[in-house]
Amino acid sequence: MPGAKKIAAIVGAGPGLGAALAGRFGREGFALALIARSTDTLARLEEPLERSGATVLSVAADASQPKSVQNAFEQIHEGLGPPSVLIYNAGAYQVGGVLELTADRFEQAWKVSCFGAFLAVQQVLPAMLEAGGGTILFTGATASLRGSARFAGLAVGKFGLRALAQSLAREFAPRQIHVAHIVIDGGIDTPQARERAQNDAQRLAPEAIAEVYWQLHTQPSSAWTHELDLRPASEKF
Amino acid sequence: MPGAKKIAAIVGAGPGLGAALAGRFGREGFALALIARSTDTLARLEEPLERSGATVLSVAADASQPKSVQNAFEQIHEGLGPPSVLIYNAGAYQVGGVLELTADRFEQAWKVSCFGAFLAVQQVLPAMLEAGGGTILFTGATASLRGSARFAGLAVGKFGLRALAQSLAREFAPRQIHVAHIVIDGGIDTPQARERAQNDAQRLAPEAIAEVYWQLHTQPSSAWTHELDLRPASEKF
Amino acid sequence: MPGAKKIAAIVGAGPGLGAALAGRFGREGFALALIARSTDTLARLEEPLERSGATVLSVAADASQPKSVQNAFEQIHEGLGPPSVLIYNAGAYQVGGVLELTADRFEQAWKVSCFGAFLAVQQVLPAMLEAGGGTILFTGATASLRGSARFAGLAVGKFGLRALAQSLAREFAPRQIHVAHIVIDGGIDTPQARERAQNDAQRLAPEAIAEVYWQLHTQPSSAWTHELDLRPASEKF
Amino acid sequence: MPGAKKIAAIVGAGPGLGAALAGRFGREGFALALIARSTDTLARLEEPLERSGATVLSVAADASQPKSVQNAFEQIHEGLGPPSVLIYNAGAYQVGGVLELTADRFEQAWKVSCFGAFLAVQQVLPAMLEAGGGTILFTGATASLRGSARFAGLAVGKFGLRALAQSLAREFAPRQIHVAHIVIDGGIDTPQARERAQNDAQRLAPEAIAEVYWQLHTQPSSAWTHELDLRPASEKF
Repeated sequence: MPGAKKIAAIVGAGPGLGAALAGRFGREGFALALIARSTDTLARLEEPLERSGATVLSVAADASQPKSVQNAFEQIHEGLGPPSVLIYNAGAYQVGGVLELTADRFEQAWKVSCFGAFLAVQQVLPAMLEAGGGTILFTGATASLRGSARFAGLAVGKFGLRALAQSLAREFAPRQIHVAHIVIDGGIDTPQARERAQNDAQRLAPEAIAEVYWQLHTQPSSAWTHELDLRPASEKF
Repeated sequence: MPGAKKIAAIVGAGPGLGAALAGRFGREGFALALIARSTDTLARLEEPLERSGATVLSVAADASQPKSVQNAFEQIHEGLGPPSVLIYNAGAYQVGGVLELTADRFEQAWKVSCFGAFLAVQQVLPAMLEAGGGTILFTGATASLRGSARFAGLAVGKFGLRALAQSLAREFAPRQIHVAHIVIDGGIDTPQARERAQNDAQRLAPEAIAEVYWQLHTQPSSAWTHELDLRPASEKF
Repeated sequence: MPGAKKIAAIVGAGPGLGAALAGRFGREGFALALIARSTDTLARLEEPLERSGATVLSVAADASQPKSVQNAFEQIHEGLGPPSVLIYNAGAYQVGGVLELTADRFEQAWKVSCFGAFLAVQQVLPAMLEAGGGTILFTGATASLRGSARFAGLAVGKFGLRALAQSLAREFAPRQIHVAHIVIDGGIDTPQARERAQNDAQRLAPEAIAEVYWQLHTQPSSAWTHELDLRPASEKF
Repeated sequence: MPGAKKIAAIVGAGPGLGAALAGRFGREGFALALIARSTDTLARLEEPLERSGATVLSVAADASQPKSVQNAFEQIHEGLGPPSVLIYNAGAYQVGGVLELTADRFEQAWKVSCFGAFLAVQQVLPAMLEAGGGTILFTGATASLRGSARFAGLAVGKFGLRALAQSLAREFAPRQIHVAHIVIDGGIDTPQARERAQNDAQRLAPEAIAEVYWQLHTQPSSAWTHELDLRPASEKF
C-alpha cells in the first residue's frame, strides 16, 4: 500500500553520494525513490539496497526536462506515495573556458544543476505542505560560492541552485518545510574518483556526507540549519 | 567607416538606466549599439541621443535567444565595428512563489537575466581579446546576493549572472578584460517608477548609476573593481 | 588520575546553551571543565551535571583577561588534564549606537567575544597538536555575518571571532584540529529569555543546538563542516 | 579662520596610499588633517602637499589609544575645524601563526586596525551629524573577507573594521553620513614595496586607489556604494 512508509526521493542517484544517501535513509526505514538518467546506474544501486531490505522504486528520467520529471514523480506517487524528503543531487560537472562552451552545453549545465531542482520541488512540495512538513536537501559544491576561471558552466547552475534554496527556505520554512543547502567542497571518494586519481588528495567519504544529510533531516524545527560546508581536513579553502 | 569610434554595446537598453548609460558613454564620444526587445523602446532612446550628436545603432533582439543575439551583434559589427565595452542590463523582474511560477517562466527568467549575458559575451569577447582589452559590465540587483521569498525566478538568474561575472573576471582579467558586477540595491528612478510609486522612497538616479559604470570603465588596470553595490542613503540593507 | 577521561572545556558556561553543551558532552563520558565569570552560575550548572554522574571542574575566570584565562586552564590541566574539545561560548551582548558606546565598553565587548577565544585557544592547542587532534567550536551569532545598526559592539567581536575561526581552520585542519563556527541566528530558549519575552517568537532549544555541536565533534576528518547556521523555522533571515 | 575650507582627516597617513589620498583631496581644495604615529613620516608627507598649495595640519598620535586620538582631533578642530571627510587607513600588518602571536600583539593588531577607527569616528561624527552630512571611508584588505592561515592578527582587526563600517552605514546613512569600505586586494605600489619586491607582481597604484576614494566621496546620496574591491588585473582572487 502506498504511503505505509516514509518516502525519500533522490534525484541524481549515482554510484557515490547517491548510493550512500539511499543507504542511509533506507537504514532508517525510508522507502526510496531513485531518479537517474541511466537505467544501468539505477539497477546497480537498487540491488544492494533491496538486499538490505529497503523498498526501492527506480525511475529513469532526465532531470532537465519538465515532462520527464513530471512523469517520474507520477510513477513515484503511484508506486510509493508522496515523498516527505527530497534530495536534489544532480549536477553538471561542466568545465571549460567561456569561449569554449557552446550555448547548448551552457544551458544544459544550468538545467541539470538548477532547473531540475525547481521541477522536482514543484512535484513534491504540494503534498509536503498538505502533510504539514517536509525536508528538501540540495547538494552544492565549491562552485556554489565561487565562480572560478573555466567553471562558469558549473558555477552558474550551482549559484542558481543556492538562490533557489534560499528563496524556498524563506518562503516555506514558516510552513515547516526544512530546506538545506550542503556545500561539498572537495572531491567525493567514489570508485571512479579513485581510478582516475592523479594524486592521493583526501576525498570526502560518501557515507560521512550522507550522515550529515540525515542529521539535517532530523533537526527539530527550533534549530534548523540552512547551509553548511563539508570538506576533508586536508582540503585548502 | 566602422571602427573609427570606440563602441559601447548595451543589451537591455530601456528608458531608465539603459538610456542614462547610453547618454553617459555617448557624451564621451562612444558610438552606441543598443539592443532591446522593442523597436518602440529603441526609437525613444535613439532620438535624444542622436540629437546630442551621438552615433547610434539600434537592434531589436531577444537577449534570451542565441540566434537573435548572434544576428544582433553581426549587425553591430557590420554597422559600427567591434564593441570595446559591453553592458548587460537585461533582467527579468519575475515575482511569485515557487509553486506559482511555471517552468517556462522560470526558465525564461534565467535566460533573460543570465543566459543572454553569456551569449552577448561570446559575441564581443574574441574581438576584445584580439584588441588587447575591453570592459564588460553586468547589472546586478538585491537578488544577486539574496534569494528572498517569492523572488526565486529573479534570484536564480541574478545569482547566475554573478557566477558568470566572477568566472569571466578570473579567466580574462589577466588578458586585460575588466569585468565588473554592479549590485543595484533599490529601485531606479524612472518615469514608470514614479507613476506607480506607492510611497516616496528614495530611488537611485539613473545618471548617478551611469556615472559609476563610466568610472569603472576608466579604472586603470592596476586597480580594478570587480564588484560594488549602489543604494540610496535611505535604503534599508 | 588526570587524563583518564576525555575532557571538554566550555568557556562562557551559562545557564542556557552552556548547560546544554555540558550535559551533551557529559552524557558521552566527557569530563567537563567549565569557565564562567560567576561562581554562582557555575555552582548552579555543576549540581545537575554531577548528579547525572559527570566529572566537573568549574573555574571562575574572566575570559577577557590573559592572566585569568591562563590561571583557569592551569587549574584545568592540573585537575583534569588537557582538553580535547574546546567550546568558546562567551559573548558580549552589547547594544547601542556608535556614539553611545564608550571606548571601554567597545573594547570590552571585543575582548569577551573574540580576544578570550584567542586566549583560550592558545591554552589548549599545543596539547591538542601533541595528541594529534582536537575539536574547537565557536559560538557565533547573527552579528557574525551582519553589522546591524546599533550592534557595532557585538558585531565587531563576532566578526573577529569568525576571522579567528577561519584562520585557525586553515592553519590547523591539516594537523587534525577541527575548527567549526556555529552561527546561531535567533534567540536561545533560556529561563531568562522566557521571562523577558515580549512576544512568543520561536526560540532555539539549547539541547537542539548542543546536539549539533556534538555532531560536529564526531564528524570524521574526511568530511568536516567549518560553518553552519541554526535558526528556528519561523525566524526571518 | 577654522572652517573656511572643507577638511579631510586621514588617520594612518603613510607614504603610499596616505600620501596619495592627501594629494587627491588636497587637489580639490580640502584642508588636510594628517594623523600618523611618526613625526618623520608626517614631515615627509607635508612638504610636497604644502608646496602644491594645500593647507596641512599634521598630528602625531597613536590611533590605538583613546586619549591620543582625542587629543589629535582636538588639535584638528582647533587648528582647522571639524572634518567632513574621515579616512581611516591605519592597519597592522601582523603575520604569524596563532601560537606565535602574543596576546599583546594580537590585541594591538586589533586596536590599530579596528579600535582606532571607532575612536576616530566618535571624534568626527557629532559635527558631521550637526552639519547634516559627511563621508567616512575605511581601508580594508584581502583579510577583511577571509581569515587565512597565519593571518589571524590582521583578519580579526579587518573583519572587525568591516563590521563597524556596516553598523555605521546602517545607523547613519539615513542621516546623510556616507560610510564606505574599500577592500584592497593586493599589494600597494610604494617605494618600500618596490625595494623589498621578490617578484614583479603588479601592484595597485596609490593614485588609482585615491581616485576611487574621491569618487566615493562625490557620489550623490541617491546612489551610494557601501563596499567595493580593488585589485590589479593580474591578481588571483
